[in-house]
Amino acid sequence: MRKERWEKLFSEIREADLSGVALMPGPNLFYMTGLRMGLSERPTLCVVEGRGKITFLMPKLEARKGESAAKELAGEGVEADFDVVAFSDEEGPGEAFSKVFSGAGVKWGFEYRAMRLLELSLILAGIPGLEWVDAGEIMKKLRMIKDESELESMRKASRLADLGADIARKLLAPGRRGIDIAREIETQLKAEGAQAVGMSLATGVDTALPHAGTSTREIAEGDLAWLDLMVCVDGYWADITRSYAVGELEPEMKRAYRAVLEANEAARTKARPGMSGAEVDALAREVIESYGYGEYFIHRTGHGLGLEIHEDPYIVASNTSPLAIGSTFTIEPGVYIPGKGGIRIEDDVVMTESGLKSLTAYPRNLIDDDRKLVV
Amino acid sequence: MRKERWEKLFSEIREADLSGVALMPGPNLFYMTGLRMGLSERPTLCVVEGRGKITFLMPKLEARKGESAAKELAGEGVEADFDVVAFSDEEGPGEAFSKVFSGAGVKWGFEYRAMRLLELSLILAGIPGLEWVDAGEIMKKLRMIKDESELESMRKASRLADLGADIARKLLAPGRRGIDIAREIETQLKAEGAQAVGMSLATGVDTALPHAGTSTREIAEGDLAWLDLMVCVDGYWADITRSYAVGELEPEMKRAYRAVLEANEAARTKARPGMSGAEVDALAREVIESYGYGEYFIHRTGHGLGLEIHEDPYIVASNTSPLAIGSTFTIEPGVYIPGKGGIRIEDDVVMTESGLKSLTAYPRNLIDDDRKLVV
Repeated sequence: MRKERWEKLFSEIREADLSGVALMPGPNLFYMTGLRMGLSERPTLCVVEGRGKITFLMPKLEARKGESAAKELAGEGVEADFDVVAFSDEEGPGEAFSKVFSGAGVKWGFEYRAMRLLELSLILAGIPGLEWVDAGEIMKKLRMIKDESELESMRKASRLADLGADIARKLLAPGRRGIDIAREIETQLKAEGAQAVGMSLATGVDTALPHAGTSTREIAEGDLAWLDLMVCVDGYWADITRSYAVGELEPEMKRAYRAVLEANEAARTKARPGMSGAEVDALAREVIESYGYGEYFIHRTGHGLGLEIHEDPYIVASNTSPLAIGSTFTIEPGVYIPGKGGIRIEDDVVMTESGLKSLTAYPRNLIDDDRKLVV
Repeated sequence: MRKERWEKLFSEIREADLSGVALMPGPNLFYMTGLRMGLSERPTLCVVEGRGKITFLMPKLEARKGESAAKELAGEGVEADFDVVAFSDEEGPGEAFSKVFSGAGVKWGFEYRAMRLLELSLILAGIPGLEWVDAGEIMKKLRMIKDESELESMRKASRLADLGADIARKLLAPGRRGIDIAREIETQLKAEGAQAVGMSLATGVDTALPHAGTSTREIAEGDLAWLDLMVCVDGYWADITRSYAVGELEPEMKRAYRAVLEANEAARTKARPGMSGAEVDALAREVIESYGYGEYFIHRTGHGLGLEIHEDPYIVASNTSPLAIGSTFTIEPGVYIPGKGGIRIEDDVVMTESGLKSLTAYPRNLIDDDRKLVV
């Protein structure tokens, strides 16, 4: 599986006529090597040269990780010369960088969103005429299409996201506070094996702001609430939003709920491979516009999802590229009526030959306390 | 309080003969402005020009934060021209960067450990002959000395660290697992108001590795354990380690415990302002050497602490600078006997005119289950 990723990366490097790319600790390094590393004051890079060389450039403290990653990749059949170049705190990184980069060519791909001046300054010292392009653009082409093992991790994360949505439904009640319920959800999901959890649980009028944080107010009878929950398993994220009624909603908000529910269903059931992000955005937007709520749907319909919570492809009017089979993204239409409240229903989906398949499965309908369907 | 910080920063900029410094989201930006912001695909900078101008360069989505920070700083008497330059997703950041940086001079201070190629590439487009130095070196001079409000936050964090150490003592028992106890500590500290919590709770032979993670093995009678716990309040960290005996320890480990305890006390009680990090390191190291455990004390005695868990000053043989009054750091000697076990006792201290004052206060002695002093 990784063998194929490396073949694609080497071919992209050659196609872009680069000397190589350098990957920083983060999702791209994890995707290519399985290494989970954090940023620190000690620079760490995986230097990939187009001529078929992979060098782990890292502090001595971490060198064992580089050695075992190299062994693992070689064992998986990745065809390259492997090397680990390590530096101690006493030596500092200067000489190691110069050993790796001197004479290795001048045109490199670096991740714009990850590489810091700390690393760049060290590389510049060895390559005076250095030029660089964004390696993030290359990596996103590789990462957009998920393989079966990636989808399996996303399914596991989605099961926990469904569980979180259910815990919220059971705990939301008048007199309680969003922050207390959020803490309980986090505790339960971590006990179930979530690697990381993030969420906003907005209640009452706070729901009218799509990026509201978790509410600290006491919940009142008749309040709306929504939980936007992100759960990570094996490095892969699920991202679910469900909206809830605590008691009886006003008729207008029930109508808004219906609009959002139908928009979510329209995008999920009518999208087909080859459609663009813009076309899928339109599938959801048209439903909400038909209810007269177009002006209250103030964000894009979705974003790609995987090792990052926001990645390609984006489900937005400006994305005219076709959505590839195997790409994963959210469908999350919403209606936010200022001063009243807002509703969002978000699912994670994967594009298949026959259309979208939802990874998240928690019921989307508005359900009252007696488990009767309201909308 | 912030007025003084800005006066120092402007004076440092002039002294280093820079056009200005640019601060990224992170601890330095928080220190100067109170803004808590995260890194995203949309670049955000606080551009500080030596001629007395502070510009918040940020996405429109966030512009309100820049505006209120500017208003707040002006209200605190910070003398500067304030500006907010914002860009929408449609416009992109190019024009805003060019507006701020064109003609603003060529020699800048950028944070090596924070600024990415994303921002640098945008700045380079407007300043062809750009030169840069590490603004992190300037900011560390400012941040090393804590003021009273910072110490107050660190005291609050230390109270929670003490609480965590107590929870561990109560829960450690044969048959339990470190990971379950760690989860309980995190839940309780978050309920008590901790903004973030990190920890390693090593048990049994795992304690012999100073950077061991949290143990998953079942605890056995006679096991050693240590909890290294980091707690954040108002952006400021406490970092405590306490070591525990589950039942009766072997005589050698009791002797090692005594060595570490005396080393911790020696450094805490004998350090004086004007001593260097190296001298304080020696105070602890000499005690452990006198017990014959010198080869098992395999790390520095401490590190600076504040908005970051590791910052200046470092309590290590290579730091010959005097420790300033108002600087905060850890004292954390340890003895790690391979294959047997390890002990570390870590406190957070502030340098005062009369010596070190400990912010963490949880008992350091080895206490048995009947609350009798063992060491």
